[in-house]
Amino acid sequence: MTSVGVVTPQTFVHADALMLQCGERLDGFELVYETYGQLNSAASNAVLVCHALSGNHHAAGVYNEEDARPGWWDACIGPGKAVDTDKFFVVSVNNLGGCHGSSGPPSINPATNQAWGPSFPTVTVQDWVASQLLLADYLGIHRFAAVIGGSLGGMQALQWAIDHSHRVHSVAVIASAARLSAQNIAFNEIARQAITNDPAYAAGNNPEHGLALARMLGHVTYLSADGMKTKFGRELKSGDLTGLQDVEFQVESYLRHQGQRFSQTFDANTYLLMTYALDYFDPAKDYNDSLVDALAATTSKFFVASFSSDWRFAPSRSQELVDALVQAGKPVACAHIESEHGHDSFLLPIERYLRTFGAYMNHLHTEVTNAS
Amino acid sequence: MTSVGVVTPQTFVHADALMLQCGERLDGFELVYETYGQLNSAASNAVLVCHALSGNHHAAGVYNEEDARPGWWDACIGPGKAVDTDKFFVVSVNNLGGCHGSSGPPSINPATNQAWGPSFPTVTVQDWVASQLLLADYLGIHRFAAVIGGSLGGMQALQWAIDHSHRVHSVAVIASAARLSAQNIAFNEIARQAITNDPAYAAGNNPEHGLALARMLGHVTYLSADGMKTKFGRELKSGDLTGLQDVEFQVESYLRHQGQRFSQTFDANTYLLMTYALDYFDPAKDYNDSLVDALAATTSKFFVASFSSDWRFAPSRSQELVDALVQAGKPVACAHIESEHGHDSFLLPIERYLRTFGAYMNHLHTEVTNAS
Repeated sequence: MTSVGVVTPQTFVHADALMLQCGERLDGFELVYETYGQLNSAASNAVLVCHALSGNHHAAGVYNEEDARPGWWDACIGPGKAVDTDKFFVVSVNNLGGCHGSSGPPSINPATNQAWGPSFPTVTVQDWVASQLLLADYLGIHRFAAVIGGSLGGMQALQWAIDHSHRVHSVAVIASAARLSAQNIAFNEIARQAITNDPAYAAGNNPEHGLALARMLGHVTYLSADGMKTKFGRELKSGDLTGLQDVEFQVESYLRHQGQRFSQTFDANTYLLMTYALDYFDPAKDYNDSLVDALAATTSKFFVASFSSDWRFAPSRSQELVDALVQAGKPVACAHIESEHGHDSFLLPIERYLRTFGAYMNHLHTEVTNAS
Repeated sequence: MTSVGVVTPQTFVHADALMLQCGERLDGFELVYETYGQLNSAASNAVLVCHALSGNHHAAGVYNEEDARPGWWDACIGPGKAVDTDKFFVVSVNNLGGCHGSSGPPSINPATNQAWGPSFPTVTVQDWVASQLLLADYLGIHRFAAVIGGSLGGMQALQWAIDHSHRVHSVAVIASAARLSAQNIAFNEIARQAITNDPAYAAGNNPEHGLALARMLGHVTYLSADGMKTKFGRELKSGDLTGLQDVEFQVESYLRHQGQRFSQTFDANTYLLMTYALDYFDPAKDYNDSLVDALAATTSKFFVASFSSDWRFAPSRSQELVDALVQAGKPVACAHIESEHGHDSFLLPIERYLRTFGAYMNHLHTEVTNAS
C-alpha cells in the first residue's frame, strides 16, 4: 500500500453570513481542507472526512518528501486502502472553531482586528455540518458517496444523515455514540477545569500546563488498561524502586511528553469549544429524546463500527445507535472489532477493521458510480 | 443496626526513631487513631482497619450527637454489622504522612520547628505496616484477629500477611490489587501534575484548584459509567441545550462541589505521598516478580473481595491475588460482588458484600476466641 503522497491544504472562503445554533452570526468564515484522489465527472465519488476532538484537515499524506508524520487517518485513506483514493475523491476539512487554519479562536475577528480567543462563538455539530454543506456546494458536490468519521467525527456523520440525507448516500459512524454519557461529560469537564484553572489562561495566553494536563487525561482514557499494560507495564524510566530515588515509570514520562507536545501545537480555546460540541451533541433531544424518531426520515445508509476495549465510546453505545436504526427500519452494516487499543483503535491499522470498512466502501463505490 | 455512637480520637506517641524504606529516619512520630468495641482479656479479638488514599482514622461513629457525617466505613463497622463491634475491638489509624493528626506534611518537623510540607520523607506501605505494628505493641495486641482494608487499605492488609503473618490471623483485601497497573499509575501521575502545576503549590500554599482537580479525576474513576448514568444521566443543572446559554450538566456541578470540598479538608503533600505509596507498592518485586513466592511463607488466612463495575481496581486484579494464593496453597475465601458503584462499592452498604464479609468475620471471631 502506498500513500497519497505530498498534499497541500487549500482554503474555502465563505463571504456570506452564517447563523449559528447558539444564535450568534459569523460574518463569513474560512475552512481549510485537503483533497485526495480525483472527483469523477458525475461528482458521485466524493467522501467527506470529519475529524475528532484534536484532529484537523490533515488526514492523509505528507507535507513534503521528508515529512515523517503522515496525516492522522493515513492507515485508512490512500491508494488501495479502506477509503481507496484510486476510487474516491476524499475531502478532509478542519472544523469551524479549529486551530489549524479554519476560522476559530486563534484567527482574527474582523470586527475587532484581534484574535477571537475565548470570544469565538459556541459551535455545534449541526453548525459544522452546515458549514461543510457550504464547502460541498463550493466544490460542486451535490451528494457525498459517504461522510465518515470516528468519535466526534462520527457524530458529524450521524448529523449529516439526519439533517441532509439527500446530500449523503451513506455515513460511517466509527467509535462514536449518539450522545455522550455522564462519565464522558465528566472527563471533558475535568479537562476544561485543567485549562481554565491555569493562570496563563486567565492572562490570555495559551495555558501550556493546563492543556498538557487535559491532553494527558484524554490520552489515558483513549487507551485501554490492557493496552497500557502491554505497552508500559511497570517499567521504570529512571530511579530505583528499592531505594525510592527519583522513581519515574515509563508511562509517566510518555504521558508528560505527549501532553507537552500537544500543548505546543493546539489552542486551548479550540479544545474547550470542541469539548462543548461533544457534550451538547444530542440529536434525539429535538425528537422527544427518541433516537428512532430522529432517524425516521433519513435516506442514508449506515456503517457503524466499535472496538472491544474502547471504554470512552463503548461498543454498547454503538449498539444503541444500531438498535435505533434497526427499529427505524434503516439499512445498517455493523462491525464489532476486537482490539486492545481502546478508543484510539479507530485510527490504527487493525486488519479486520480496515478490511471490513474497505469492503463496505468498495461496494458503496460500485453503487454510487453505477447509479450516476 | 446501630452506630458505635460518639467516638474520640486518641494519639499514640512513639518517641524512638523509625527507619523508613527510603533510607530516611523519623526521630519519633505520632499516630492518631480511634477504637470501637472492647478488647477481650486475651487480646485476641482486635481488628486493624487500614484506610485508602483519601481516608483517615475516622472509620465509624460520629464526633457528637449532631454530627450528620459518620466515619467512612460506618456501613461496615458497628454493633451487629459486618465488622461487629459487639465482638471485635476495632482499631482505625491515620497513616504516617496523613493530614488528619498523624505525623505528616502538615505537622511540625521538630528539627526545624516548621511544617514538614513537601520535605516529609517518602513513606511506603511497608513503612505504614511497621508503624502500625508499633501501635499494636503499645495497645498490647500481640496478634490481630484481622487486618482489613479496601483499595490502598487492602494493600496494607496484604503487606501485613507478608511481613508479619505471625501477628495477624487473617487479612481482608477488598477492591485492591497486588500492584498498580500502568493505567492506575497514569491516573495518579495526572493527579500529581494537577497539584504540582498549580502555582499555589510552588508558592508553598495548599493548591486548592489543583487538589480539587485531582479529586475530581479520582472521583470519576472511582465511579462506573453505568453508575454515573443512573445518578446523573444528561440532566442539566442550569442553562438550555437548545439556546446553549450557560449550559451546565448536573454531573459537572456535582464534581466541582466534590473537588472544592475535598480541597478544603485535605493536604496536597499528603495526596502526593499517598499516590506514590500506591504506585511503588509491589511486594512481588523482592521475590523475582513472583507473587506466589512473596506469599509462600505467610500463615495468615485471606478474604478477597472485588466488585463487578470497579475498573480502577478491576475484579481481574483481585483474581490475580486469589490465583497466587491458591498456587501458594493458602486458605482464601473470595467474593465477587455485582455492583454498579465502581471502586466506591467497597464503602457502600451492598447487601451481599456485607453479608458475606460479616459471615467471614463472625467465623473468624469464633476461631480466634476459641483458640485463645
